[in-house]
Amino acid sequence: MDAQAMRRTMERYLELVAAGDVDAIVEMMSDDISVEDPVGGPPATHVVGREAVRAFFAAGFTRARPLPTPTGPVRTTAGREAAMPFLLTLTLRGRPVEVDVIDVMKFDEGGRIVSLRAFWNAAEIRDKRAVGDAGQ
Amino acid sequence: MDAQAMRRTMERYLELVAAGDVDAIVEMMSDDISVEDPVGGPPATHVVGREAVRAFFAAGFTRARPLPTPTGPVRTTAGREAAMPFLLTLTLRGRPVEVDVIDVMKFDEGGRIVSLRAFWNAAEIRDKRAVGDAGQ
Repeated sequence: MDAQAMRRTMERYLELVAAGDVDAIVEMMSDDISVEDPVGGPPATHVVGREAVRAFFAAGFTRARPLPTPTGPVRTTAGREAAMPFLLTLTLRGRPVEVDVIDVMKFDEGGRIVSLRAFWNAAEIRDKRAVGDAGQ
Repeated sequence: MDAQAMRRTMERYLELVAAGDVDAIVEMMSDDISVEDPVGGPPATHVVGREAVRAFFAAGFTRARPLPTPTGPVRTTAGREAAMPFLLTLTLRGRPVEVDVIDVMKFDEGGRIVSLRAFWNAAEIRDKRAVGDAGQ
């Protein structure tokens, strides 16, 4: 598992979220994948195992149509973990909203994702800013 | 431990790194603090306990004069963990270099830092970009 492979997988993950391609996302994960989305969320947001993750993501994609935009590079490490920042646009009951997210992923020897921890806070979801008003 | 307190502590941590104030940094940490800086680094970069962290940071500050610049907001959670992205400028043997970092912190009930995990890769340290050339 080298740094470039981790970076490619994480960038591809965001592309697949944007495309709503749950099957391709789950394909990148190990059988015993653990997803916390968000970290510190209610018990139902900590999901273990590929089929449970498939159902969790499929429901979330249908409900909220998540659209991530990277806001900086993937931070790789010399280990098997990496982190990346992005802005996530969601559509909640027809209303476009957004929230800042950092995903931390851990990989197995073969390069599959074994842990995904998404740092965001439902209390910090805000109305989507107009284009050109994105700040930072 | 609420989200705003985590955010304030993490923002203050970056200010204290910039100021080189090791004592004030260690004061924000629990006795059994665990620091991985970087994640996946050599054994000597995983340091446990306040006095060990004090020595580790003091040596690093003297050697590399780290100067962090936030590149996005702190991502809090409803739990006791949060993450933030920044750009770190270092001075290595007189040469200004930089690397992208994401710090993940975990807090105890009293709001002290119990774990700091810094995601960056020594292999990705690069010469510092000129001002005005900082774009992603």
